[in-house]
Amino acid sequence: MSKTEYDVVGIGNAIVDIIARCDDAFLSNHGMEKGFMQLITAGQADELYSDMGPAQEQSGGSVANTCAGIASFGGTCAFIGRVAEDQFGKVFAHDIGSIGVAFNTKPSDAGLPTARCLVLVTQDGERTMNTFLGASTELGPDDIDSDLIASAQVTYLEGYLFDRPEAKAAFHDAAKLARAAGRKVALSLSDAFCVDRHRADFLELVRGGVDILFANESEITSLYELNSFEEAAGAVRAEAEIAVLTRSDEGSVILSGNDTHKIAADSVDAVVDVTGAGDLYAAGFLYGLTKGLPLETCGQLGSLAASEIISHIGARPAENLQELAKNKGISV
Amino acid sequence: MSKTEYDVVGIGNAIVDIIARCDDAFLSNHGMEKGFMQLITAGQADELYSDMGPAQEQSGGSVANTCAGIASFGGTCAFIGRVAEDQFGKVFAHDIGSIGVAFNTKPSDAGLPTARCLVLVTQDGERTMNTFLGASTELGPDDIDSDLIASAQVTYLEGYLFDRPEAKAAFHDAAKLARAAGRKVALSLSDAFCVDRHRADFLELVRGGVDILFANESEITSLYELNSFEEAAGAVRAEAEIAVLTRSDEGSVILSGNDTHKIAADSVDAVVDVTGAGDLYAAGFLYGLTKGLPLETCGQLGSLAASEIISHIGARPAENLQELAKNKGISV
Repeated sequence: MSKTEYDVVGIGNAIVDIIARCDDAFLSNHGMEKGFMQLITAGQADELYSDMGPAQEQSGGSVANTCAGIASFGGTCAFIGRVAEDQFGKVFAHDIGSIGVAFNTKPSDAGLPTARCLVLVTQDGERTMNTFLGASTELGPDDIDSDLIASAQVTYLEGYLFDRPEAKAAFHDAAKLARAAGRKVALSLSDAFCVDRHRADFLELVRGGVDILFANESEITSLYELNSFEEAAGAVRAEAEIAVLTRSDEGSVILSGNDTHKIAADSVDAVVDVTGAGDLYAAGFLYGLTKGLPLETCGQLGSLAASEIISHIGARPAENLQELAKNKGISV
Repeated sequence: MSKTEYDVVGIGNAIVDIIARCDDAFLSNHGMEKGFMQLITAGQADELYSDMGPAQEQSGGSVANTCAGIASFGGTCAFIGRVAEDQFGKVFAHDIGSIGVAFNTKPSDAGLPTARCLVLVTQDGERTMNTFLGASTELGPDDIDSDLIASAQVTYLEGYLFDRPEAKAAFHDAAKLARAAGRKVALSLSDAFCVDRHRADFLELVRGGVDILFANESEITSLYELNSFEEAAGAVRAEAEIAVLTRSDEGSVILSGNDTHKIAADSVDAVVDVTGAGDLYAAGFLYGLTKGLPLETCGQLGSLAASEIISHIGARPAENLQELAKNKGISV
């Protein structure tokens, strides 16, 4: 076994977010379910974009956001995902590379543009996402670098990958390689509707394929088709090695065997944009875990990173997370 | 004479800003003069970008920012400038169109990408700009729609246009058309180094070609090659019909004949990013002027818009300026 080179290798969709403010009526007039993600076609993306107000662009993508967060804590991280050779592709590659995340997936030249997510942020800070996957759908098993997977303590995967068969195959290959190398596999359930689309697959993974599961309240209740958070938490405790359940301003719960750690949410002056809250919670948690910190501290780092991200527009850290942790007296 | 269709038509470089934070050492290590704008080549842009930290993208361009501000006040506005048919070009066109500014300049297909400005924001909120003009250099006299110019109360031009002979020719054509139609011509001096490059041309314009001149302290002292603001103000008073001189947190001074209006700067909780402060001051001022408001009120609207823009990242309004004005008791 080679010496560990990375704390975490993440695999996910490589996306640039196009972020605009709107009111609740805009969402309902466009048939969007507030707070969730839907996949849209290129045509739908063009149509929606032309209806939206002025926007700003920032790199996104769930696992990619987590990787940026881990790097901001000082962790070593690599990302696998597919962009195109266009301006958004350059933006994505620049942003993730410049924060110190290794990113060497070959850009697609198949003609599809880099993925974009039209993010609508309402007055309450809630975000509703509309994703055109574009070039990120070109990710497949060939992009999974087995040495890279074997070199990382944790391979972190997003449930969104299941929306494409080639990406799903890449996901399974990566998980298999990580396990064969004696490494950990972590999964984010991504979105309640995504869980709806792939429930059987995700249940199988939770029961055997992954070591650490991240889910929010709507995702975990969707997974088990249960009405209450408590019932869903009971169900996942019995099946997952470590389950990390986030509940927005009610904080998070970490379940590990019979242990339960309740972590309070960090308070913020004003919730500006919740985009990336779950991704950054995962960043803090995984960073702590790879540094061998207690699960409770991992959760505190998650809360800290989530509170930073919701205090501004966009899903990438605006402040250095390692410094924020130090300022809060958490030794990282 | 046809009925006025627009309050203001703006002509300028169509630019997407790529905004990143950095420390003062980064500026000096890269030979940049803090607080100013320099033109860079495509190669220099790529090199600088690869050295910069994670960024976000937002539409920019000096006069384009002003047009967006006028629209946010509720004014009617059109913009003339050249993008390419690429992703940044679509971003630029979307952002300016979605706020209600008419933008119909044909995109360039000459191969140059849409202009981008690498904006470095230091801890003090000061911005230092590095512009690759790209497709915006394709703007020329053919792009000046004479009916549009004749239909607008004010034609607003940026000094930056003088950096290219074709754009300079377009500038002169537009100014001539506006004057022939009995309209007003307004000019922003843009940047002290830009003034240095084109002093004779700018002096000639101030002495005869423009009705309203916008300049900050470093630009007006550069124009007259004088050391003190007071001397430069005295010089411009004798030559310009209306001179609007901005002085950052010291507010602004409006000179018109023998009249002097001193306007205080609006206070902000924290100066996050001064990019666009002058552009948005001009937006408030020109909006007020086209509504027939007293010069002092025009200046107050300028201060209000500038204070909004410096309280967040980016040079386009994040809040509705008409509502902000109403909340402040300025009837617009």
